[in-house]
This record gives sequence, structure tokens and C-alpha cells, in this order.
Amino acid sequence: MLKEAEQKIRNISNFPKEGIEFKDITPLLKDAKAFHDVIDALAQKFSSEKIDYVVAIESRGYLLGAPLAYKLGAGLVVVRKPGKLPAAVERVEYALEYGTDVLEIHKDAIEQGKRVLIIDDLLATGGTVAAACELVNRLGGKIVSAAFLIELSSLNGRQKLSSVAEVYSLFTY
Amino acid sequence: MLKEAEQKIRNISNFPKEGIEFKDITPLLKDAKAFHDVIDALAQKFSSEKIDYVVAIESRGYLLGAPLAYKLGAGLVVVRKPGKLPAAVERVEYALEYGTDVLEIHKDAIEQGKRVLIIDDLLATGGTVAAACELVNRLGGKIVSAAFLIELSSLNGRQKLSSVAEVYSLFTY
Repeated sequence: MLKEAEQKIRNISNFPKEGIEFKDITPLLKDAKAFHDVIDALAQKFSSEKIDYVVAIESRGYLLGAPLAYKLGAGLVVVRKPGKLPAAVERVEYALEYGTDVLEIHKDAIEQGKRVLIIDDLLATGGTVAAACELVNRLGGKIVSAAFLIELSSLNGRQKLSSVAEVYSLFTY
Repeated sequence: MLKEAEQKIRNISNFPKEGIEFKDITPLLKDAKAFHDVIDALAQKFSSEKIDYVVAIESRGYLLGAPLAYKLGAGLVVVRKPGKLPAAVERVEYALEYGTDVLEIHKDAIEQGKRVLIIDDLLATGGTVAAACELVNRLGGKIVSAAFLIELSSLNGRQKLSSVAEVYSLFTY
């Protein structure tokens, strides 16, 4: 059944820039059955892990993380771009191919020892997710796994994350 | 039960700017029961409406729209800020208090006559949601309702939307 969902992912050439082939998940999301199937598959993988919080990374991570938290009966925590969270935050700056980026989490988002599943749509080089892991660690959360709809294995994100989180991906290219 | 969820919304003064009292929903989201209860309440309201697509507005709208689509067994469609959707888009520019903003939707996101529920976290002046309605209308979707977690009634968003969509809000201030 996941094969059908996977076939709904479409490749778009030269987006966001020349030479990049973008994995567009919008056809999968808009297909009620495909969307349901991928959320159920992710939930099943982690259903026995007693997840306290699903941490979803802004903004496409929300599309998977929110229904996954709902299905698992877990709380939903957001990691956001800078300046968007209104209360006191932990903040991490991390390197991109060119320049740097920043992610934030509310300081009161996760209590010591809580079991956390981190979600994003895509694992590429792993920089964004490593930054999210750093934020969860600073709050004392226990990272059970980092999960993705899609992994681009040639970019070695799994290797980059090897010391901080187990990695699980539904579809690998 | 929704009373308990509502109590998890916290007010933060002077965010994002001086004089504004911000409704912070992150404590509600991170409470597994409160989060589950609000999604169930929204789903129950529209369960007999045969919703084909839940249209979620970037980015906080995703946090409610994605689990709602999952629960309703509907497809999930995203309305995004400019430049983020990779395929051909419809685009609408709309007025803000100062300046303008732009929203986009994939041209192939919604087929003629499909029943659509539009979701965002907060109804304020209604400008963003009116723009989302315009995009759905251009694609030929039938807007069943626009739904919100929170409505700030003093800003008259409901009135602004009166000609384009029915409005439903869980919590009104």
C-alpha cells in the first residue's frame, strides 16, 4: 500500500534552483488514502515507543508531525524559524551550504527525560535535523528517533545524525 | 472537555509587537489530550459534510489542518507563502495593515466542484483567509466552511468573510 503512496511523490526539475530535482509531496498529501497510509505507517513504527512528544520542524514537518502526534496520542511540539515563538526560547545557529540558519524551541516545550520523536519531511544533509536534536537535548528530552518521509541517501544525512539520533525513513532515494 | 483545552492557550503581551496580546497555542498543542480534543471537536463539526480537501494555510494552519484531514479521511492541500510551491501556481496578493502579502496554491491542487474546508489557527481581520478562499474559488472548489481554533471577534474577520465562507471557530474572544 505504501508503494501507491510513494508513486504520488513527483519530481520537479530545477527547483528551488537550477540542477536540483525537488521531491514534491503535495500530490501525496492531497490523496486522502496515500496521506492516511503514510501517517499510519509512521505511527505503527513508533506505536510501542511510548512517545511523549512529536517534535515537528517548520513548516513541512508540521504536515506529517501533527497528524502523527494525533495518531500516537502524543503532544505536539514545534521547532520554528527565528522570531516566531512568543515565549522564552532555546536557539541554535547552524551552517548551511552558504551562510547559516537559526532554529528555536520554547524553553518550556519539553520536560527532562520525556521521550521525543523528531519529524521532518525530508532528510538531505541533516543539518536542520541535527539542529533540532541539539535543541531537544538542551531541554533534556530523550530522542527516540528522527523520522522522515523521504531520505536522499547520497547526501549522507544519516551519517551526520549517527551520533545523535536513530534515523527512520519511509522512502529512500 | 474543550474548556480544559482552552485553558492551555496562553496570552503573551507585546508580541509580535508592542501593544499586541498574542494567543500562544503551543501549550495546548503539547498537551496530548488538549490537542486530541480540539482536533476531534473540529472533525465532529464537519464529519457529515463529505469534505474532499482540507486546505491548510502556512504555517500554523498546518498544525490543525493536517490532523483534521487525517481524521476526516480527506486530502490535505496547502496554501503557501510565495516561491515555495514547485509546480504551476495560482497567486493572490492581498492587503495587510502596512503593505501587501502573497499566497499561492498549486493549480492542480483542487478539482472543480470538490468540497473544501479551509483551516487556520486564528481569525483576526480575515485578510489571509479571504485570500485563501479566493485561491480555492479560482480552482473551482466549493468552500464548505472556514474553520479556526481562535477567533478575535473585535477585528470583524467574520464580517469580512461573510460573502465568501461560513465561519466556525472553537474559541472566541
